[in-house]
Order: sequence, then C-alpha cells, then structure tokens
Amino acid sequence: MEKIGIIGTGLIGGSFGLALQQTGRRIYAADKNPEHLREALSRGLAHDVLTDDNLRQMDGLILAVPVDKLPGLAWEMLDKTASHTWIFDTGSIKSNIARAVASHPQRKRFILSHPIAGTEYSGPQAAVENLFEGKMNIICDPDDSDPGMLQRVVDLHAELGMTTRFLASDEHDRHIAYVSHLSHVSSFLLGKTVMDVEKSEENIYLMAGSGFASTVRLAKSSPDTWTPIFMENKQYLLEVLSRYMENLKNFATLLERGDADQIHRWLTEINRIGRVTDRIKHDGR
Amino acid sequence: MEKIGIIGTGLIGGSFGLALQQTGRRIYAADKNPEHLREALSRGLAHDVLTDDNLRQMDGLILAVPVDKLPGLAWEMLDKTASHTWIFDTGSIKSNIARAVASHPQRKRFILSHPIAGTEYSGPQAAVENLFEGKMNIICDPDDSDPGMLQRVVDLHAELGMTTRFLASDEHDRHIAYVSHLSHVSSFLLGKTVMDVEKSEENIYLMAGSGFASTVRLAKSSPDTWTPIFMENKQYLLEVLSRYMENLKNFATLLERGDADQIHRWLTEINRIGRVTDRIKHDGR
Repeated sequence: MEKIGIIGTGLIGGSFGLALQQTGRRIYAADKNPEHLREALSRGLAHDVLTDDNLRQMDGLILAVPVDKLPGLAWEMLDKTASHTWIFDTGSIKSNIARAVASHPQRKRFILSHPIAGTEYSGPQAAVENLFEGKMNIICDPDDSDPGMLQRVVDLHAELGMTTRFLASDEHDRHIAYVSHLSHVSSFLLGKTVMDVEKSEENIYLMAGSGFASTVRLAKSSPDTWTPIFMENKQYLLEVLSRYMENLKNFATLLERGDADQIHRWLTEINRIGRVTDRIKHDGR
Repeated sequence: MEKIGIIGTGLIGGSFGLALQQTGRRIYAADKNPEHLREALSRGLAHDVLTDDNLRQMDGLILAVPVDKLPGLAWEMLDKTASHTWIFDTGSIKSNIARAVASHPQRKRFILSHPIAGTEYSGPQAAVENLFEGKMNIICDPDDSDPGMLQRVVDLHAELGMTTRFLASDEHDRHIAYVSHLSHVSSFLLGKTVMDVEKSEENIYLMAGSGFASTVRLAKSSPDTWTPIFMENKQYLLEVLSRYMENLKNFATLLERGDADQIHRWLTEINRIGRVTDRIKHDGR
C-alpha cells in the first residue's frame, strides 16, 4: 500500500487526505498546530501521524502550508526524505518555491503543483472529500522534475478527477495574480467598504441579496493563508490592482458625467466574461 | 379569481407571473418588446395578454421594467387603471418613482416595492417560479399608500414566501447603493480588468476557480437593467465607490510597503462580514 505524508492539515491538505484514502493509499499527517493535527485525526483526514521516524518510509509527501512557509519546508523535506520519495507542494504561488529549491542537489524529486480548488473556509473542519473533482491542476517547470516522479504526481491528480496543465512558474504567478488573487483583494475590500459605511449589520442583512453574498464570499477567506499570498505575489498583484483602480476611476468619471451610452457599452462588452464562467460552470468546477 | 397585470416580462416580472399563478391568480402580461411577450406566453409566465381593454379589470398591477422607465409608466398607469386597482413597482431604486408619483391625485394606489431577489440572468427565459421564496421585500414610504392596498401587497409577497420591511425611499436608495449596487460595480469592473490583462480567454479558463466565478458572477448582469440603476442612483453610488477606491489604494500602499502585519489585521477584521453572509445563507436566501 502506497504511503503518503501530508504536512498541513487545513482545507487543502485535509481534503487531499480524505480523497487519497479513497484511492487505497495510507495517509500520515503532520501539522505544527497540535490542535489541528488532533482535529484532523479525529475527523479521519489521516490514518496516522507523520513523524521523523516514519518520514523516510513515505512514497510521496504533500506540502500544504501557507506560501511563506513553503520555501524553507521544501528544502528541509528534500534533505530529510528518502531518495525514492517524490514531494509536491500545493501553494498558490510557484516562483518563490522554484527559486528556493533550485540549488538543492535533490531538486528533481520536487514537483511544483497548484490545484485550482478551494472554498472560503479553512482548517481541518473545512476539508471535503470531493474538493478536487473536476478541477484543474497546474504543474510548473516540469522539466526540472524527475520524469517518473512527475508522472506519478500527474496520475495521482488524475485519480482524484483533476486535469493537469503545465506552465512556467513565473507565468503561473502572473496569471494567477490576474485571475485569482485580484478577485480575493476586490472581495476583501468590498467587504471592508460595506462594513465601513454601514454602521449596523442589520442594514447589510436586510439589503443583501444573493449577489452581494456571492461577491463578498471570498472576504471570509483565511488571513493566515492570504496575507502571505498577497505579500509573495506583490509585484504582479500591484500591477493588476492599479489597472483595476484605473478602471473604477474611469467608470466613476463616466457616471459623474452622466454618460449612460458609454456605460452601457462597457457593461455589454464585460458581459463576454460569461462565456468563460459558463464554460467553467459547465465543467462542474 | 384575482386578476393581476404585469408590465415587463423579464427575470422579475416573469418570475412574479410564475409564482402568482401558483396562488390561484390569473395573470395578464404586457411587454413593449413583442418577442419577449411571445416568449413569456409560450413559457406560460402569464395566461393572457394585458391590453388597454382589460387593464381596468385588473385587481392589481405590477410594473417590472428598467428603473428609468418606471417614473413615466407609474404616472401613466395611475391614470389608466380603475380606482380599485393597486399598483406596485419592483425597481431597485425608489426615490425617483416616489418623486414622480408624489403629485398624482391617485398616489395612494401606488406602493413602492423592491423584492431583494434576482440572478445574473435576464429576459423571460430567466424567470423561475421560486425566485422570491425566503427572500426579503422592502416597501418604501408606506404612509403614502392606501392602508388596505398596502396590506394586500404585503400579503401577496408573504404568500410567495417573502418577509416585508418598511423604509423611507431615500434611506432605501442609500443603503442599496452600499450593499447591492457597489457589488455590481466591483464585479463588472473586475471582469473588465481581467479581460483587459488576459489577452487569451484560455488563461482565464485555466486559472479560474470557483472563487473567481463567484466574484464575477454579477458581471453577466443585463446592461439594460443596470445602466439606468447606476445612473439613477449616481449620488450614493459615487459616494461609496470613492470609499471603495480609497480602501483599495490604502491596501496597495500597505502591500507596497510590505506591511504584512497590518494586512493580516485588515483581513481578520473583514472576516466579520461572514457573520452576515452566514445568516443570509442560513435563511436560504
């Protein structure tokens, strides 16, 4: 029976634990937060505890900790694991880890991976078995990994119902800032703005429809996860954030000027985004 | 059998048609777009066509057209309908209609109503029977309406599973700008920004998770519906929009400065919005 270690038993690590058990693998978990580890074990996210003693028996190791902890942990685990063990991380940023492991003599055992899956919840209690089903997985800089180990990691994701695509790590970070990280910023700051102006939660409750709930859903995401993501992907995020602010400013100018025709043209043009989101919906993502 | 006329057979008018049929009422529909009317009848959103001949036989009339068309239509319908007919509109802005009907000798037959319900889809094909179930309804300036007719309109919404709350029309417009209209602007402009920076739809498709889909969902909303809403609620919308832009700018400054601690504090504070959205979700809205 294949043995998989998972470090970090939150939403992503915990969901991998649940899903991989269904494929007949044996799961060993570790978490620097002892309460999380206890919770993970009691919820059955793993069979056993991952320790320094059994670490070298693992066939594979998954690193699912916040992105600022990943570079150090990746290096440490390449040091401590056996030569037959593949390792992948699940972080939302890839070039910082790519740089961190670049000069490690065992670099080839590491696979830079990012499952495009998640919810606004966090911790072991947020783990769900089917989180990855039908989702996309991005693996970066595949040529820097051992081809056999790379294939095993691609196959593992396929077993969970995921499609893997390959990208350069820097490309990944740029596009993910545009498509995912900016959404989180816009949602967090929308939540802040509404709380700033509405002194009473009752008014928000009264006026909020499903549209508001959908738009601020990501504002419930974990600060421990998202602060380091924003910090580490600062360059690309600031770039697209300034673009977003410029668009908002231009919209405000049109509104102030009363230019309904131009606003109507903008909204009609923007509606095209529906082509992409409908396709995602159609895929069941 | 109570006879209800509905003018405008889009998402809201059409959904009222479907839902009110279930309560045993007979529905008569009109739409200035003949294709929409044909589509509405063929989908069974109404039993019959509302005409100048049968208009005075209606017990009640629902106006579900874009908010810039409502003031004129409200006045016209107060003129044309019989003295026993109550009328309510469903617009997302209330003070423009309040002002428009204020001096009409039949003002008391008009009820300013706003069902907090909708989806990102539009037109007769978007109508769904259970759109209003469990949702909130806001009625404005209730003292300006006939008490008996007001009660009938409140009861009608209750029959569809809605809870009605009362507010002054100006208060309604201010709070709805904060909670609903700003969400639409942030979502539309997020969609625009991502399309601006991503030349290829394929990259958006590849990188987009459920979070992105949720945040840009409203960017698919109808330009015909939303352009007039933005224009008519310009004052309050510009006010809260400048607050949003200020928050984004301050966030960008923190990010640029690398102030992770302060960003973490912000996100933690913003997470409180979850208390409200969880309550909405718990209500099944």
